[in-house]
Amino acid sequence: MTYIDKNFHRFVTELQEAVRRPSIAAQNIGMEEAALYFKNLMEAYGINAKIIPTKGYPCVYGEIKGKSDKTVLFYNHYDVQPPEPLEEWESDPFSASIRDGKIYGRGVSDNKGNACARIQGIGTMLKLREELPVTVKFLIEGEEEIGSPNLSDFVRENADLLRADYGVWESGYMNPDGRPGIYLGVKGMLYVELFAKGASKDMHSGSATTIPNPAWHLVWALASIKNKEEQILIPGFYDDILPLTEKELEMLKDAMHEEELSEEKAREIARKNAQSLGLNNYLLDLYGLELRKRSLFSPTANICGFKSGYLGEGQKTVLPSTALVKMDFRLVPNQDPYDILEKLNTHLKQEGFDDVEVRVISLDYPVKTPAELPIVDATKEAALSVYKKPPVVSPTQGGSGPMYPFKKYLDLPMVSFGVGYWNSSNHAPNENIRLVDYKSGIKMVVEFIDKVAEL
Amino acid sequence: MTYIDKNFHRFVTELQEAVRRPSIAAQNIGMEEAALYFKNLMEAYGINAKIIPTKGYPCVYGEIKGKSDKTVLFYNHYDVQPPEPLEEWESDPFSASIRDGKIYGRGVSDNKGNACARIQGIGTMLKLREELPVTVKFLIEGEEEIGSPNLSDFVRENADLLRADYGVWESGYMNPDGRPGIYLGVKGMLYVELFAKGASKDMHSGSATTIPNPAWHLVWALASIKNKEEQILIPGFYDDILPLTEKELEMLKDAMHEEELSEEKAREIARKNAQSLGLNNYLLDLYGLELRKRSLFSPTANICGFKSGYLGEGQKTVLPSTALVKMDFRLVPNQDPYDILEKLNTHLKQEGFDDVEVRVISLDYPVKTPAELPIVDATKEAALSVYKKPPVVSPTQGGSGPMYPFKKYLDLPMVSFGVGYWNSSNHAPNENIRLVDYKSGIKMVVEFIDKVAEL
Repeated sequence: MTYIDKNFHRFVTELQEAVRRPSIAAQNIGMEEAALYFKNLMEAYGINAKIIPTKGYPCVYGEIKGKSDKTVLFYNHYDVQPPEPLEEWESDPFSASIRDGKIYGRGVSDNKGNACARIQGIGTMLKLREELPVTVKFLIEGEEEIGSPNLSDFVRENADLLRADYGVWESGYMNPDGRPGIYLGVKGMLYVELFAKGASKDMHSGSATTIPNPAWHLVWALASIKNKEEQILIPGFYDDILPLTEKELEMLKDAMHEEELSEEKAREIARKNAQSLGLNNYLLDLYGLELRKRSLFSPTANICGFKSGYLGEGQKTVLPSTALVKMDFRLVPNQDPYDILEKLNTHLKQEGFDDVEVRVISLDYPVKTPAELPIVDATKEAALSVYKKPPVVSPTQGGSGPMYPFKKYLDLPMVSFGVGYWNSSNHAPNENIRLVDYKSGIKMVVEFIDKVAEL
Repeated sequence: MTYIDKNFHRFVTELQEAVRRPSIAAQNIGMEEAALYFKNLMEAYGINAKIIPTKGYPCVYGEIKGKSDKTVLFYNHYDVQPPEPLEEWESDPFSASIRDGKIYGRGVSDNKGNACARIQGIGTMLKLREELPVTVKFLIEGEEEIGSPNLSDFVRENADLLRADYGVWESGYMNPDGRPGIYLGVKGMLYVELFAKGASKDMHSGSATTIPNPAWHLVWALASIKNKEEQILIPGFYDDILPLTEKELEMLKDAMHEEELSEEKAREIARKNAQSLGLNNYLLDLYGLELRKRSLFSPTANICGFKSGYLGEGQKTVLPSTALVKMDFRLVPNQDPYDILEKLNTHLKQEGFDDVEVRVISLDYPVKTPAELPIVDATKEAALSVYKKPPVVSPTQGGSGPMYPFKKYLDLPMVSFGVGYWNSSNHAPNENIRLVDYKSGIKMVVEFIDKVAEL
């Protein structure tokens, strides 16, 4: 591991170079350049790499045979979220500035930091040893942040190429107490736009007596989807949710700080954490075990954006002609995004919102890797050895991802760990990782491969 | 009136020059230049003019003594609405292009066309006669589109200067059947922003399980303000509304097309008019008398704008940290905007929306001039003589305006007529007036002054 310490400056520079190549899939910015960068980076470390076209942005594929045919597949993505709102960044989102031991930049945590750390970890092993103990494959796609519209086809069509025994999912985060996170699944997602149209043009708001307002229609449609007690009102929405297992409950409890076992203390910790985010309390005043349960096992109905009418300064008395809402529903096993979409459509029709157009942007199934598999213990051991603290193993995570095709076409058990931390601000301004976590994250890759070799 | 026909090209050019000076109060663009333009235009026609400062944008004041001390005050404004959304304009909003017998441009109807027509009408009289039959005053303010925050003080402080016997309000519109509109009042208005804050920064939408979303808060707050049956749910909101008088009902009926008296025909006409606006039907499927009643005598709760989270293309899975709604409530006699504001605040608190901040942007009282006053008949006669069709007299209008200070400090009875038409698209893209209405509008000013002289 001294090799990693000695070469860390170079590793950081390589990550900065990756961040400095904006690759915003939603806005079709810089995609080819970023794909090429990761292909070149792999080749520089002696990994065989190629760019494979898809119907959308291409995938970068890398492979290096090891002593054994036992194979690990790393999944990452080179596309990033749009950086907006720009005015809230303290430094240029694509400058990859370093301040106070952190690298700031769009994509530094999600997901270029992880992609780089894994290439560099494997690269380190190749420098120091004749051969890897196991075979390693990389798949770095370019459409994760726009819902991976072509990944399922890609995995199906390239199943032989991608075949592996164990998969490593895109990311992982250090907890506030210094314990590294390991994740065994992802939530599913249904991302939709709700669109409503009124008159053919914006009108003077004096005519609101007689002209329908699409912004009101979306307000009422939304209010019919979730109430202020946070209950999702789409009939059948909760039907297919699996109950929490004993093992999962155990994992949740294991993840808690010892002091959280006191109710009063748990309440105080929750309040303190909420306050650090600028809130008085978490949603529904949750704390302790219930907070963790809801975070991991509850689906959501979230408004990502609402746009209608006059958005500028001051007063404009206008009756808007259109209104647009962007929403994501995070889903948990066994909710099916296609089924939820159908239920949403049926619900809106039944509530009389025939005029609200539902536009599907993306769908993802929820997936869970069974906690009993040996790969889970191997990952825990690797983490304990690197971080010197017992990892927190989560049966799933708050986020979603396109894990389902890997389960469906490759039957691949996935674990997830990475270089982020609890305040990495993925998808938000000032996204960042800590340098110390970046270094540990590279070491974790080496340790993980060695533990897998022992399986 | 042949003078007006002969000089019409010059009149149009002067209006185009006015439109080509953008004067957007909400954005502090071009205000001084526009004020100066109207001062110079008045002086060019021999009207004594000066610019009077206020705490905000200045007022332009003009005066010309007549044979009699009997005085008419014209109220207009030189500021205009912001032109956005720019992409929906078919020509530059400040180019004042002429197409198909119409002049297009922001402010051409609201309100520069009317300000110019009145100056030009009085100018015409001054060219052709030794003296005006009555004294005429002009007040052209610069803050109407931002709620006239300084007008009330201005009228109070300059009551002697502004003193008059009759007032002419800012605008008027031709109906689809070719009858000119005369209006005896304005609705009141309460314009507010509702603002809600969540976490201190935008977050990954995976955290929607535990982090409150301000966009949802505003959705629920709005849904508590008006339901989808268009009922405003703020307790006491409707309490002070005066019932319709017999005279008002008569005026409404007089305004209707003869064919509208058949229910079936009225329904068909409403549907046709709605379709010309891109709608299947008017709100609540109204038609005929009920449609007109609601248009003139109902208050509104309208969403002018809703802004939260990601507004760009494609998918961004974000949990917004702020949400902003712009709303206007149009009020009818005797609703009091300050009272409605208090009721709104109380309502939001009672419904548990303590976190929703109500920011007042502007307040206006509703005002009505009694239909029995002789000035109303004089105006009708002038209109009949110019337009050769009986005018439609509305006891009030859909729009609002700062008429209240003129009633309160000057006890001035106001009538309103002007150069617009039913499709002038005030406050919307492609605002326009018809050249034919512009010419008649100038003639109407001359005819009106002569009728007033006979009172």
